[in-house]
Amino acid sequence: MKKSTIALAVATTLVLGTGIAYAANDEPISPIKPPANINLGAVELGKKLYFDPRLSKSGFISCNSCHNLSMGGTDNIPTSIGDKWQQGPINAPTVLNSSLNLAQFWDGRAADLKAQAGGPIANPGEMGFSHTLAVNVLQSIPGYVREFKQVFGKDKIEIGDVTAAIAEFEKTLVTPNARFDQWLLGKADALSADELEGYNLFKNAGCVACHNGEAVGGNSFQKMGLVEPYKATSDAEGRAAVTGQDADRFNFKVPTLRNVELTYPYFHDGAANTLTQAVDIMGRLQLGRRFSAKENARIVAFLKTLTGDQPSFQLPILPPSADATPRPTPFGK
Amino acid sequence: MKKSTIALAVATTLVLGTGIAYAANDEPISPIKPPANINLGAVELGKKLYFDPRLSKSGFISCNSCHNLSMGGTDNIPTSIGDKWQQGPINAPTVLNSSLNLAQFWDGRAADLKAQAGGPIANPGEMGFSHTLAVNVLQSIPGYVREFKQVFGKDKIEIGDVTAAIAEFEKTLVTPNARFDQWLLGKADALSADELEGYNLFKNAGCVACHNGEAVGGNSFQKMGLVEPYKATSDAEGRAAVTGQDADRFNFKVPTLRNVELTYPYFHDGAANTLTQAVDIMGRLQLGRRFSAKENARIVAFLKTLTGDQPSFQLPILPPSADATPRPTPFGK
Repeated sequence: MKKSTIALAVATTLVLGTGIAYAANDEPISPIKPPANINLGAVELGKKLYFDPRLSKSGFISCNSCHNLSMGGTDNIPTSIGDKWQQGPINAPTVLNSSLNLAQFWDGRAADLKAQAGGPIANPGEMGFSHTLAVNVLQSIPGYVREFKQVFGKDKIEIGDVTAAIAEFEKTLVTPNARFDQWLLGKADALSADELEGYNLFKNAGCVACHNGEAVGGNSFQKMGLVEPYKATSDAEGRAAVTGQDADRFNFKVPTLRNVELTYPYFHDGAANTLTQAVDIMGRLQLGRRFSAKENARIVAFLKTLTGDQPSFQLPILPPSADATPRPTPFGK
Repeated sequence: MKKSTIALAVATTLVLGTGIAYAANDEPISPIKPPANINLGAVELGKKLYFDPRLSKSGFISCNSCHNLSMGGTDNIPTSIGDKWQQGPINAPTVLNSSLNLAQFWDGRAADLKAQAGGPIANPGEMGFSHTLAVNVLQSIPGYVREFKQVFGKDKIEIGDVTAAIAEFEKTLVTPNARFDQWLLGKADALSADELEGYNLFKNAGCVACHNGEAVGGNSFQKMGLVEPYKATSDAEGRAAVTGQDADRFNFKVPTLRNVELTYPYFHDGAANTLTQAVDIMGRLQLGRRFSAKENARIVAFLKTLTGDQPSFQLPILPPSADATPRPTPFGK
């Protein structure tokens, strides 16, 4: 009953030959599912750690600094700011729906969120700390010692538990209920005619070949600059840095398009400021196709229907440092 | 009935001559009152602005960066980090209960929260932006234009409305229900014997001469280094910068001691890492008194009873930039 309603609505709107092909179950994109098998204690602990700048050398940079949950899980600047205002080499990918990625980072060098979470803490250009120093700080804070004990059953805090808790929190950062998902689930009037035409074009032009699945991306590595080379402002060579294979140069993880309205600027170098630019460049470089202004606008309209419910939670209150807690060193060595 | 219970409890615990002097109504410190006459629309708008790094040149620094509401409304570093990692000249005071201050900033150069809020945005060493540029950014963001219209009834955003909204949010950042306030309000067992003795010492030694009222401070300017000069690591000369009077050199606004457990490090130069150090230095420099280790510990125990309920709210989700929104310039000029 529901399916035929969708098919009918779509068929009517798009004047397609067979509306039935557009019924939700046959679509190459599937709705975001709520997170399952979540350890709530670890989530609450991970949320605190995610917001805690004491995991950085300076005491100023937290996970949320560059993956800001007020701003689509990104920092909305081309490349991030690290310890002592160092300029990062690459655009910070969104943390939203990142549990759906086949691997983490643009080059997929971390297998999962837990492996990823340790990276920035110890990266001299990002949080500039070390795992040992970060754990020493946490171990000196009575509120954290209690909470780690409660969640992991141990008195001694270990970096693996720190990253596990952060990853558990990040698993909750999914964005269900986008208008596009409502449409997929049967609400025929969730999308306008323009948005539906944009989706149709997105499929027919071939965007969907890489941007598909629950995250509308994130599930393969693809060459940036397939038809025409991409002139990046970043030196990053992508997947080749992990595999050592020359064939993997400029292969990057396909970014999710979920919430893409919020995650500007675009591409691994953050060089495209607007969705209009990004769609134009992708069309030319990846598909050898120049979208007309009208086509471009319709695809952009469709992309904006992928904005889902943003994670909603109380700002965490962090346990205070104790007298013995090593103090951050924002300035000097 | 309630009063006599408190008096009795205190008299019993402290073995005072007359317990009655310690009944709540006669105390030099009064409980934090909930905020009144609040415009809820302005609060919600101000909360977004408070968390929005687009009010800075870099797109990286928001009010919450240095007055972090996860960390007692401070950044917990001696002096703050500004645009391009510039080292600030002074310790960031807590935003918590700041509506109770007689004036804002350590030198009181801003009359109220609204006047204060404009300062860091345009300070080249802090957010490094200008009021005109900040307003241009906000005016280009449809979500903000709608919300300003709703709250202030105008299509054109003005800096005075930006700072008014931030100030309105800040007025809500009070911290009621501290254990000490529970005791003031009649809950005799809210404090331990040590904590009560600490409070008694705090009064008898003279700390309360400056640290009194609802905020336990914040209501006068006093000389830092009254009995002995203070060797500051900061060049700031305090109130003299505002009045031009030599007599006001090293006069600073007495900081609130509310939530002082969370607002380390201490003093205008952030040079004291612990409450133990701060109490010792204050005793010697302001009162000419060396507290014994036991006395110091009791005063610290009392100070920790001033931690109130921290502001509790959903992390705000910011309206996205539009294509025409001027982009931040984190690097370069």
